[in-house]
Amino acid sequence: MPRILRVAAAQMGPTQRADSRPQTLARMIALLEQAAAGGARLVVFPELAFTTFFPRWLLDEAALDAYFESALPGPDTQALFDRARELGVGFYVGYAEKTPEGQRFNSAVTVGPDGEVLQKYRKMHLPGSVEPREGSRFQQLEKRYFEYGDLGFPAFHGPASWGEPVLGMLVCNDRRWPEAWRVYGLQDLEMLLVGYNSAAYDPNGGDSEDAALRTFHSQLMAQANAYMNASWAVAVAKAGEEDGSGLIGGSCIVDPNGRIVAEAKTLADEVILADCDLDLCRQGKEKMFNFAAHRRPEAYGLITSRKGAEAPPR
Amino acid sequence: MPRILRVAAAQMGPTQRADSRPQTLARMIALLEQAAAGGARLVVFPELAFTTFFPRWLLDEAALDAYFESALPGPDTQALFDRARELGVGFYVGYAEKTPEGQRFNSAVTVGPDGEVLQKYRKMHLPGSVEPREGSRFQQLEKRYFEYGDLGFPAFHGPASWGEPVLGMLVCNDRRWPEAWRVYGLQDLEMLLVGYNSAAYDPNGGDSEDAALRTFHSQLMAQANAYMNASWAVAVAKAGEEDGSGLIGGSCIVDPNGRIVAEAKTLADEVILADCDLDLCRQGKEKMFNFAAHRRPEAYGLITSRKGAEAPPR
Repeated sequence: MPRILRVAAAQMGPTQRADSRPQTLARMIALLEQAAAGGARLVVFPELAFTTFFPRWLLDEAALDAYFESALPGPDTQALFDRARELGVGFYVGYAEKTPEGQRFNSAVTVGPDGEVLQKYRKMHLPGSVEPREGSRFQQLEKRYFEYGDLGFPAFHGPASWGEPVLGMLVCNDRRWPEAWRVYGLQDLEMLLVGYNSAAYDPNGGDSEDAALRTFHSQLMAQANAYMNASWAVAVAKAGEEDGSGLIGGSCIVDPNGRIVAEAKTLADEVILADCDLDLCRQGKEKMFNFAAHRRPEAYGLITSRKGAEAPPR
Repeated sequence: MPRILRVAAAQMGPTQRADSRPQTLARMIALLEQAAAGGARLVVFPELAFTTFFPRWLLDEAALDAYFESALPGPDTQALFDRARELGVGFYVGYAEKTPEGQRFNSAVTVGPDGEVLQKYRKMHLPGSVEPREGSRFQQLEKRYFEYGDLGFPAFHGPASWGEPVLGMLVCNDRRWPEAWRVYGLQDLEMLLVGYNSAAYDPNGGDSEDAALRTFHSQLMAQANAYMNASWAVAVAKAGEEDGSGLIGGSCIVDPNGRIVAEAKTLADEVILADCDLDLCRQGKEKMFNFAAHRRPEAYGLITSRKGAEAPPR
């Protein structure tokens, strides 16, 4: 029996700092309903989907708490979970997690069609800095606000109604690290879900990379890493001009050959859909990327034994 | 002082089994001269450049020996080395290596402008099979004819006249394995050289991937892995219809942003050139792909501890 999973990428336009939580949640529910009406059984939202991308601001503890969920679902998010369960669709959503112990992570969950959390993921590759950059209007303070993910790269099975695909999650910058994809690939990954907020330009000026190049990079990562791991990939942006800072769009659904099969055309709220034949992964996994037949792990030692780059002696 | 290295990709059209060695070497020397006339200081030839892609045939030991070099330079290759030294250009060339002890490898060397071998590399990721596929007219017997490379991924410095770039070599199928690129990236790679012979279609029929898709895959690998390691890449094909079996072209020179800056347009002997600013690697190495700041080697254990893929428990 063919395993065809119809998925949606629910790209979100910008969420301003002044936007209220109910306002943003209502947009997400509208996207969910649109995706469900289109037949999607799994809907992928961006990173930190419930709020603006707050790591661009230097905030004190109290201000920070407003952006974090101390429970998921919680009072500000319950309606999304309820509506998804009513519609019988699952979803991936990125959010700022605060644990009962007070730890903070840049996290994502995948929720099944029954409303239960199938798996949680905590971002492993945090960009930015701990200390604010002096004289800069906009910051990137993820290393300040979040702890490094401590759950590794936990692949998991979707439910029977989705064809039991092996799923993996990443968050934003993680998708640029081939190690992250490969650890999932070694768990027989069939579909990778990733939400992102990626700068369209340097909001402090003096930049060499324009939005087109940054969008190219984002899609290149999904395409190449999907191909090299013989997996589908769903990469979903929060996009557009957010509080004076620009974010790329380019949300896409990529097949195991690295081809984009659906792509967002705007920088706004937009749903794109694709029927993903999970068995399309088999050709790559059995031939070109038959890891058991072709990998050389004994030669890859530097990947785990060395962190930074060191040039060879002259 | 800017470190600009003008490199050439010397794509080769097909070399038939009936072509004589002097005939093929003369083509290579003509490509070398064309590249040198264009100002190239480093010329990259394909994998197994001196002969047809013989692993497609089932051969006995004696027949096999005709395709292997027991010395490099040797009687059948000396003229290329001599001409390159006269012109003061270096080159990468792929060849079938037979050691004095009788070991066989799918190898490549990079030769400096003074004619000395700077570094040897032996293909680490051998595709194909040991036993011939029954009933198939064309084979892929690399696992039969070659031993696995035993030199690892040895990055090395080019000479002062090239700007002392950190160089790395791969051979063909290696370029599809992100681990190979990353081990070089961890040695501060600035330019990756790779020659290939990649099928344009399944010569035995019954195939799902056409030449356009296979060329896309080949270029995607150079682009994404160059970007993820903030390195230049020079990927060079033997192309065209060779003894009834088709090979893709698509030779390209890729910048550290993953953009193709020069690309072959034919499936024949063709030289493409690019001025590679080696310092363009620095932005990636210092920001997005600052490995020391951002990698999480403690979470990558599966890459070295597991060879084949294993799905998570249901």
